Amino acid sequence: MASPEIDALTQALARLPGLGPRSARRAVLHLLKRRETALAPLVRALQAVEANMSTCDTCGNVDTRNPCGICTDSRRDVSQLCVVEEVADLWALDRARLFPGRYHVLGGRLSALDGVRPEDLNIEGLVTRIAAGGVEEVVLAMNATLEGQTTMHYVADRLEKLPIRITQLAHGVPVGGELDYLDEGTLAQALKARRPVS
Amino acid sequence: MASPEIDALTQALARLPGLGPRSARRAVLHLLKRRETALAPLVRALQAVEANMSTCDTCGNVDTRNPCGICTDSRRDVSQLCVVEEVADLWALDRARLFPGRYHVLGGRLSALDGVRPEDLNIEGLVTRIAAGGVEEVVLAMNATLEGQTTMHYVADRLEKLPIRITQLAHGVPVGGELDYLDEGTLAQALKARRPVS
Ligand SMILES: [Zn+2]
Ligand SMILES: [Zn+2]
Repeated sequence: MASPEIDALTQALARLPGLGPRSARRAVLHLLKRRETALAPLVRALQAVEANMSTCDTCGNVDTRNPCGICTDSRRDVSQLCVVEEVADLWALDRARLFPGRYHVLGGRLSALDGVRPEDLNIEGLVTRIAAGGVEEVVLAMNATLEGQTTMHYVADRLEKLPIRITQLAHGVPVGGELDYLDEGTLAQALKARRPVS
Repeated sequence: MASPEIDALTQALARLPGLGPRSARRAVLHLLKRRETALAPLVRALQAVEANMSTCDTCGNVDTRNPCGICTDSRRDVSQLCVVEEVADLWALDRARLFPGRYHVLGGRLSALDGVRPEDLNIEGLVTRIAAGGVEEVVLAMNATLEGQTTMHYVADRLEKLPIRITQLAHGVPVGGELDYLDEGTLAQALKARRPVS
């Protein structure tokens, strides 16, 4: 029924997380009925992001600036560095400004199953950042999964000799849970009760 | 935390039906992580629709062609015309090709509360289409709401003198239900058991 253009848009939207074919159709209809107030703003917002997005060379965050808004925010406490697996985790933690410091995105977690080795993660970049000085505490905020915890211990071992405090998120993160799905209250508790890596 | 561009995109997506702030953030992250395979195709799909979309002068459907794909589809039975309130209803009925004929979108329903009068709906266009000949049956497929049924009876009265059969959807549409939310089985039953307007 619909034109190829409308079909293509419906399919592109249906691939977004949280939208299936049915809600994608409703979204398309919503956009078609509101050309000036919904469709045009969405097109412009996407174009602006597409034209400007980049990965921060310092921390691995995705932003429209490089270095990113967090790395260039002078109000941030440079003595605290929070290490996360993915950009999604950084966003989850930073959403409610729970952490006053800066971040480091590893870009994944060690996985024998998926063939992810230490050299596939941005661990060297982390060591280099810390070696440059200024960092006093590194919070290892990996997911509470087996692979996340393996990654945490590997990173902790790699940082062992550096003159810094190494902490991990408190239990409070449910076992098997992924940071990006947690409510801010749980994240806040886990961050507040963080303890040295044992 | 995020840049103004990313915030603007998150907000534009959060306004789509079916997406809240949380799923909008996940969608943005999904797009940022897949610049070539998700972000770029979505931008192009939206641009194509924005550049080409228009309202069909014949039936009121929204499409990237005018007249729309349905009105120009020669396989359609021109003797049957299905009248709906909104484009969303047309899409719901046409999704599974339940109706072999063409459509007419009124653009709303009569409502004393909202101040929608007969002249605010595309009823004259419907009368003109039917008067031009070829139509043998008009299926009045309004929502099973009070206002939808009021609209149906008003349109039926307006078409009374024309040499056509006027039918309505069978009961099967739940009372208070809106077409766009129904499953195809219910829509198929309601269409199959349609009966003359009493
Ligand atoms: Zn950064
Ligand atoms: Zn049309």
